[in-house]
Amino acid sequence: MVAATAQLDRREVERLVREVLRQRLDRANQPPSSRVQHGRSRIASGSNPLVVNVSARHVHVTQPDLEALFGPGARLTKAKDLYQEGEFASEQLVTLVGPRQRVIPNVRILGPTREYTQVELSYTDGVYLGIDLPLRVSGDHDSTPGITILGPRGALMLARGVIRAQRHVHMCKGDLNHYGVRDGEEMKLRIDGACGVTFDHVRVRYHANVILEVHIDTDEGNACDLESATRIELIK
Amino acid sequence: MVAATAQLDRREVERLVREVLRQRLDRANQPPSSRVQHGRSRIASGSNPLVVNVSARHVHVTQPDLEALFGPGARLTKAKDLYQEGEFASEQLVTLVGPRQRVIPNVRILGPTREYTQVELSYTDGVYLGIDLPLRVSGDHDSTPGITILGPRGALMLARGVIRAQRHVHMCKGDLNHYGVRDGEEMKLRIDGACGVTFDHVRVRYHANVILEVHIDTDEGNACDLESATRIELIK
Repeated sequence: MVAATAQLDRREVERLVREVLRQRLDRANQPPSSRVQHGRSRIASGSNPLVVNVSARHVHVTQPDLEALFGPGARLTKAKDLYQEGEFASEQLVTLVGPRQRVIPNVRILGPTREYTQVELSYTDGVYLGIDLPLRVSGDHDSTPGITILGPRGALMLARGVIRAQRHVHMCKGDLNHYGVRDGEEMKLRIDGACGVTFDHVRVRYHANVILEVHIDTDEGNACDLESATRIELIK
Repeated sequence: MVAATAQLDRREVERLVREVLRQRLDRANQPPSSRVQHGRSRIASGSNPLVVNVSARHVHVTQPDLEALFGPGARLTKAKDLYQEGEFASEQLVTLVGPRQRVIPNVRILGPTREYTQVELSYTDGVYLGIDLPLRVSGDHDSTPGITILGPRGALMLARGVIRAQRHVHMCKGDLNHYGVRDGEEMKLRIDGACGVTFDHVRVRYHANVILEVHIDTDEGNACDLESATRIELIK
């Protein structure tokens, strides 16, 4: 099969290249993106509805770190509610600077503020920034790398807390009972579709006040093309 | 757990921001990257060694399209042999320009030249460029989008041939017999490890003169962290 192509004359090429270079500079503050963003989900039947959401790269912050980035007295303001009650995507964006001085701008802080500051990235992001990301459960910062975070009013040299979050499923007591699992156990997540995948090592994370929700990252969401999934299943 | 952070004074912040902006402009011709590149592989035991390689974004070209990009009489020159005999990563690089005028530079052409020009991207790349990638077997360009390709001596407006390649495994006659499968069938690929994944729909592609090799893309390679896989298995 021969793909149809058309040649441009030299003047057109020069115009195009100039245009591209100009756009490239305009675009310099835009990050590498990903097919899936927060909020894409698939719901399957069960005693509780099963929801899978993709976590795009994001940051959690302590109140002191928020103030270091956004100024004294700064507060996170809500842009959008997330699936778990009380959790939200804030309007506050920061810029990440990796050890090779590569930058990912417009990274969203998720609220509310926490007891730790943490940066959650995909491996694709990690390679781009030059960070060898450890796989961790949220909050486990033992032997994790740091990063520089820039806000409009200041910068943080975060000493540690940069991770790839392990695939996990949030469960309340009823969900644990329904699936016959305990906090900290691992399950499998089956995604059917043209790019079907079964993910191992989906960590169960119990909390009294959550609703059933699986979190995977953008690499995982793109690998299985969650958008076009035909069926999802959580397997003990 | 509280992550250790340190505040910078205003002057230091300004210096840092200036430095970042400068570096960002320097970096404007660098693409979003990926954890895994061509050539990473894992070998498992079997009657034939099973090799899984990650295909980073790349381009195949016809000889006329090569000449449109690199000038009359241009030839692909070898940078590195690939796993299949006769296949190679060339020294020739092109720039891709998507419909939103976003750019991915330094995309490698794989040789030798082919009967069709084709661009193989990950979904992460597709979102970045603004292209809704169809999942296709190599060479199937029915209802596929196009893209602009820039070379040092010209540009191509490729009308179609931009795809996400379906996961596939190259097999010769002996491999078909060993696994008891036929050309065009689909298998499963199991990757064990901390990010363990089983991939469905791995398409068998027969050719007389190939050696057993699975190809997945960077989203898939990063999702399963192929680098740290402890075991791989191809399942009928």
